[in-house]
Amino acid sequence: MILGVAYYPEHEQPEHWPIDYKKIKEAGITQIRIAEFAWAVLEPRDGEFDWEWLDRSIEEAAACGLEVVLCTPTACPPIWLVEKHPDVLPVNRSGATVRFGARQHRSYSSKHYVDYSMRIVTKMAERYGSHPAVVAWQLDNEFGGETKFDFGECSLEAFHAYLAETYGTVEELNRRWGTVFWSQRYERFDQIPLPAKIDADVTMWQNPSLEMAFAKFSSLSIVNYARKQAEALRPFIDGRPITTNAFMFRWGDSVDWSKLFDGLDVVGMDIYSDKPHEIAFYGDACRGVLQRPFWMMEYGTGSRNLISEMELLKDRGCSRFFLFKAKPFPWGQEQGGGHPELLTLTGEPSANYGVVRDYTERHLDYIEPTEAQAAPIGLYYHFESSWSYRISVSDHIAYADYMVDTVYRSLYDETRSVDVLYTPEHIGDHKLVIVPLHLLHDAALEQRLSEYVQSGGRLIATTDLFRKNGDNVFLTQVPELYGSVFGWNANNFVTDSIRVRPSGGVYTENRYGEGKAWFVARDTSVEEWQALIAKALL
Amino acid sequence: MILGVAYYPEHEQPEHWPIDYKKIKEAGITQIRIAEFAWAVLEPRDGEFDWEWLDRSIEEAAACGLEVVLCTPTACPPIWLVEKHPDVLPVNRSGATVRFGARQHRSYSSKHYVDYSMRIVTKMAERYGSHPAVVAWQLDNEFGGETKFDFGECSLEAFHAYLAETYGTVEELNRRWGTVFWSQRYERFDQIPLPAKIDADVTMWQNPSLEMAFAKFSSLSIVNYARKQAEALRPFIDGRPITTNAFMFRWGDSVDWSKLFDGLDVVGMDIYSDKPHEIAFYGDACRGVLQRPFWMMEYGTGSRNLISEMELLKDRGCSRFFLFKAKPFPWGQEQGGGHPELLTLTGEPSANYGVVRDYTERHLDYIEPTEAQAAPIGLYYHFESSWSYRISVSDHIAYADYMVDTVYRSLYDETRSVDVLYTPEHIGDHKLVIVPLHLLHDAALEQRLSEYVQSGGRLIATTDLFRKNGDNVFLTQVPELYGSVFGWNANNFVTDSIRVRPSGGVYTENRYGEGKAWFVARDTSVEEWQALIAKALL
Amino acid sequence: MILGVAYYPEHEQPEHWPIDYKKIKEAGITQIRIAEFAWAVLEPRDGEFDWEWLDRSIEEAAACGLEVVLCTPTACPPIWLVEKHPDVLPVNRSGATVRFGARQHRSYSSKHYVDYSMRIVTKMAERYGSHPAVVAWQLDNEFGGETKFDFGECSLEAFHAYLAETYGTVEELNRRWGTVFWSQRYERFDQIPLPAKIDADVTMWQNPSLEMAFAKFSSLSIVNYARKQAEALRPFIDGRPITTNAFMFRWGDSVDWSKLFDGLDVVGMDIYSDKPHEIAFYGDACRGVLQRPFWMMEYGTGSRNLISEMELLKDRGCSRFFLFKAKPFPWGQEQGGGHPELLTLTGEPSANYGVVRDYTERHLDYIEPTEAQAAPIGLYYHFESSWSYRISVSDHIAYADYMVDTVYRSLYDETRSVDVLYTPEHIGDHKLVIVPLHLLHDAALEQRLSEYVQSGGRLIATTDLFRKNGDNVFLTQVPELYGSVFGWNANNFVTDSIRVRPSGGVYTENRYGEGKAWFVARDTSVEEWQALIAKALL
Repeated sequence: MILGVAYYPEHEQPEHWPIDYKKIKEAGITQIRIAEFAWAVLEPRDGEFDWEWLDRSIEEAAACGLEVVLCTPTACPPIWLVEKHPDVLPVNRSGATVRFGARQHRSYSSKHYVDYSMRIVTKMAERYGSHPAVVAWQLDNEFGGETKFDFGECSLEAFHAYLAETYGTVEELNRRWGTVFWSQRYERFDQIPLPAKIDADVTMWQNPSLEMAFAKFSSLSIVNYARKQAEALRPFIDGRPITTNAFMFRWGDSVDWSKLFDGLDVVGMDIYSDKPHEIAFYGDACRGVLQRPFWMMEYGTGSRNLISEMELLKDRGCSRFFLFKAKPFPWGQEQGGGHPELLTLTGEPSANYGVVRDYTERHLDYIEPTEAQAAPIGLYYHFESSWSYRISVSDHIAYADYMVDTVYRSLYDETRSVDVLYTPEHIGDHKLVIVPLHLLHDAALEQRLSEYVQSGGRLIATTDLFRKNGDNVFLTQVPELYGSVFGWNANNFVTDSIRVRPSGGVYTENRYGEGKAWFVARDTSVEEWQALIAKALL
Repeated sequence: MILGVAYYPEHEQPEHWPIDYKKIKEAGITQIRIAEFAWAVLEPRDGEFDWEWLDRSIEEAAACGLEVVLCTPTACPPIWLVEKHPDVLPVNRSGATVRFGARQHRSYSSKHYVDYSMRIVTKMAERYGSHPAVVAWQLDNEFGGETKFDFGECSLEAFHAYLAETYGTVEELNRRWGTVFWSQRYERFDQIPLPAKIDADVTMWQNPSLEMAFAKFSSLSIVNYARKQAEALRPFIDGRPITTNAFMFRWGDSVDWSKLFDGLDVVGMDIYSDKPHEIAFYGDACRGVLQRPFWMMEYGTGSRNLISEMELLKDRGCSRFFLFKAKPFPWGQEQGGGHPELLTLTGEPSANYGVVRDYTERHLDYIEPTEAQAAPIGLYYHFESSWSYRISVSDHIAYADYMVDTVYRSLYDETRSVDVLYTPEHIGDHKLVIVPLHLLHDAALEQRLSEYVQSGGRLIATTDLFRKNGDNVFLTQVPELYGSVFGWNANNFVTDSIRVRPSGGVYTENRYGEGKAWFVARDTSVEEWQALIAKALL
Repeated sequence: MILGVAYYPEHEQPEHWPIDYKKIKEAGITQIRIAEFAWAVLEPRDGEFDWEWLDRSIEEAAACGLEVVLCTPTACPPIWLVEKHPDVLPVNRSGATVRFGARQHRSYSSKHYVDYSMRIVTKMAERYGSHPAVVAWQLDNEFGGETKFDFGECSLEAFHAYLAETYGTVEELNRRWGTVFWSQRYERFDQIPLPAKIDADVTMWQNPSLEMAFAKFSSLSIVNYARKQAEALRPFIDGRPITTNAFMFRWGDSVDWSKLFDGLDVVGMDIYSDKPHEIAFYGDACRGVLQRPFWMMEYGTGSRNLISEMELLKDRGCSRFFLFKAKPFPWGQEQGGGHPELLTLTGEPSANYGVVRDYTERHLDYIEPTEAQAAPIGLYYHFESSWSYRISVSDHIAYADYMVDTVYRSLYDETRSVDVLYTPEHIGDHKLVIVPLHLLHDAALEQRLSEYVQSGGRLIATTDLFRKNGDNVFLTQVPELYGSVFGWNANNFVTDSIRVRPSGGVYTENRYGEGKAWFVARDTSVEEWQALIAKALL
């Protein structure tokens, strides 16, 4: 595993760079991650670029033996861009414009935002793409962090285009969304609103099919924008790897990772947690996307169990580990008092500086694994099912929390990796595959699960499996695998027939081909999950 | 009691109608309630009507032996109307327009809304008014449900007209509202704002007299609109009864029932509760308005105690009982998974299908009582006092909850009906009349209560009786019945003189004429109420 | 101590004035406080003044032996002014205009508001300035109560001027605020927004330096406006004292008292509390500002311990004590039912009327002390540090609550006054000075504290002392007195070096010169404070 740290040369006087670099290097760190939010410093005025400081800070890093991961600074459009083209700013669910002054104040649907941000990305690529000290690229910062959804005009227009492409005709959309309900019938795509709040005296909400379409569109907007940045870099970077830093689902899993990382080279992630099972989950979740080693792009230096957590992630396939961050910020929204970073505000080593240095001196091998091991158990994560539960008012479930704190916690053992699966193709020769809360029907997955069990796999699914279609509409027919795989032959979904929860939460247990399948309750407890998993692994 | 169920023919393929009708009929149900939200299907484009599907679905219902209660679909103006006349949309307390996409997105003060909705109502009346299968009409759906108050321009204009009519001159309004306080003095009616939020750094609120005037205006707007619909129907329906479905006060008692049902023929209501005393209260509350049998327009089929609750309501005067609903909605805001309806999403009988069928086979008489029995105890419900307590910031009380969960619960016995009284004339020869939280003075009620006690009645009132006038302003003189009826002769209101709560909450007990009267604390507990009521009934 | 009461002649029929005045006088009260919100009655139309009622109500008061404290009515601009000049209305943090109908609906940055309000103030001064019955003046009412911050256009413009004056160049502002963080760099002052909410999908906030500048500007806007009123009065009032009624920090300490009262003659305050230590704190806090006796401008007549609380305040330097209020308001936002005032709604003496009369008969001396005694312990209150903690998202502390409910409560003894100190000059020959949560560095205070300890003083400060500068930015160097006074010689702030909280919360104890100094934890408990204070006083 390679060790890195976030550094902000633009925050320091140039004469401090070598001092800081030296202290970083002495801690056994070999890479720095820089330029993340530096747009206004790199392009202080429209079309006027200032590379001098970045040139020099990279040179000095290289001189100190540090390699550089360069970030595109697109999460923070400068004031001159916002002033010139106000449509750069997104609009929130309540209809208020997200103002300048924080970060992620950008609409992925604004042509101006896209054009201007691609220009700075391309300029950076041209200048640093083949720089020997620049070893990798990070796109933007935490896509979909502060701004997940955009309710502005540019977004509305792009959404109408998305709907037209997806549904073909408005009649088809009406049919699939059931707009006959409450006279919601639309006559043209351009009448369809974004699902902003409808605050009457009682809070109302929009059609769940509209919400789902908007959730898909919003994820896709980010995915497409990220791909565009990657495509802009490729011609200049000579095969250097591109990643981005995704974040914990607890902060929102609104971007489909399997699509986001599809066009990138490495999965990158930021974790801020003190729960071992949660940290382990994300390690497994990162490795699963591309079934390759991954990078930890931000990890709080101040953790009280930093070393054991580094080991936990390394064991799950982490090949580069970037601490956040070298020094505290004295100003700005993330200003802080001092000791959780590598150095304190006064420039002294923090408590964990020594911890890191000791570790790198004794243990760090600096070898990057290039392949990841498959695990015996697979856990299926489905973003769109998560969105369906998030959208639901009467049956709201915090899907990600359930996956992490109930199912994964039931599975968790420090030494046991689990494969987090995102597509039907990810199901390999696992001994056991668990498919919790997979509410939305997916014909390919239905097919793959059948094959998997028939050829000997063990399968546990919750009883809400495939109850809705991709438009977030309930099915009115029971899918075929209910009968074949699970042995459920009634013309009703499971909980519609059986209203009393069975002991242990297990509704059905069925042999199919060489394998076996179980239907369990959604509200299965950690203890019940553990008992069932133990049984299924026998 | 007659049994019915809500059905949405527009949600189904026509070939499913006879299948569903047959299943409904086989459960012992004889009426269906239809067309509630079907405006966009009945009038897909401005002035173009499509009756064919409704004609046919009614014919087929009749052919299956089902009668029809037809609903006006006015709670859901179609997109074309909203697009053509945006003033159809109401505005909420925060100043945001209530958008298209849910229901009740209509301003009762919008001329366009009124005109267009009256046109569809009139067209329906012309076509189906004398149809032999159509046996009754329901107006709209849950008036004042999602939209109780409208802070838009049309509403503001109508409110100014209401104030001018009510107060005559702005000087009179200034005097009665006490606008000398905080320099609130108005010079013209058109300067008076709707009582929208005033969010300074500390949340402020508007003059309580303005709030009260707006509460009365808002109730009246709905009452007048409902009457207008009823008047539009009358010429065509040959005496068939008209109702509407009011709802539980827990969801807001902002519409004065005694005025709403004054122009209609039957009281109709929707109940969603699992508390027997609450269900019983609403049975009594419905019967009381017109002192006649009433209809339950919506009752959740999925209730675990459906039969006993049906009996509870039947015993209190329910003459028609409509289940909600025949089938789950697969899409839309009320989409659901399956079993609480009569049929599941796959079309199979739900668990309660059998319960209903068994009940109708064994017990249901299908006889509608035409008169209601008076009960020995009267409980006075005063909408405007409830609004005064809702408006109050420093002395806020959830009036309806208190009536239901404290006073009525103290009275509740499965077999004992109570008369809920709404006007002085409703006080008959009851043994006991209870008047809790009647904050606003009403000269006619003062007069009637005096006569009632003098001629032998027992009266319990809380000590806040008649403390304010109809402008929501505190009286500065003690009303006459304090001395005569209650024996309270001080020149102060009760709690202004006696600051220590007496044991049992009883402040005074007084013989007057042949009867007796008690003043009790507002915060009297259920146990204390029970003790006092027992004593008063001796 | 002199006793007064708030009275609203404009609320009553003139024939009631002598009746009420007589009852007031009979209670032993000798002053009335009037005209607080009477703008619309004094100037019913633009430029048309009606003094007749005020003339007469003052005459009649004088005739009854009552003196008058006259209030400027500027907290409630009339409807005609708001209608004519809508920029009078402030805008809240969410961007909504604070509407007419309550109070404090005025922007201190609106030229129209300032001009019109100065006109009525000047007119009142001309007419009543030398009136023999008018003995003092109160400015406005509770400056910064409902409206502390103004996010409107006038305020924005004034804020830009303030920034230009404070920072000189935008480059200097960028440097001091650290706008290099997240590319926040501004090019011109007029691009800088007011720190309104940035509600993305995750709630964001503005740069803490921008927030701090706006907090200072907002306090200054009020201070300057108050001074302007005082200056308008001076030429006409012949040396009569001017005060205003500040309020409890629990409702916001956004106005710097030491600046607000700098241009006035007496500190005035409103207290609504039932906690003796809190009441005592504010007594000490009022005396401390000008180190002179102070006036209690509003105190709830209904308090259950009115007399002991009056004594508590008298002992701390209160020289005039105004009850709030003579009679309940029947209408308006503060309408009330009856007994906490001197008289009830029906005009009868309330329960506390007798309490007041008994007290004045037996105890009240009617002598105003002219000097205040210094106390042995000083407690330093720093408004700007309080704002810094209020602004902080990750390290938010309710500074005022901490001062009152932790530190002062630890010190509190009914008979022991404490000097609340606001400036370095306030530190005299106290035995002990306590400086809790003084987050912002102040060179003059650093200097004064050094001298104070060197010459024998005892000093307790919390370990967050001087961690930030006045721009709300963390220092990167440890201040000199850390080493000299506190004996802390590390090149780190205290808690950055010592991560384990020491027992008792005491980090360091150090002799310096003739005195001694302690660094204690911010989270020191009441018991720990008491132990340390006892030790420090030895």
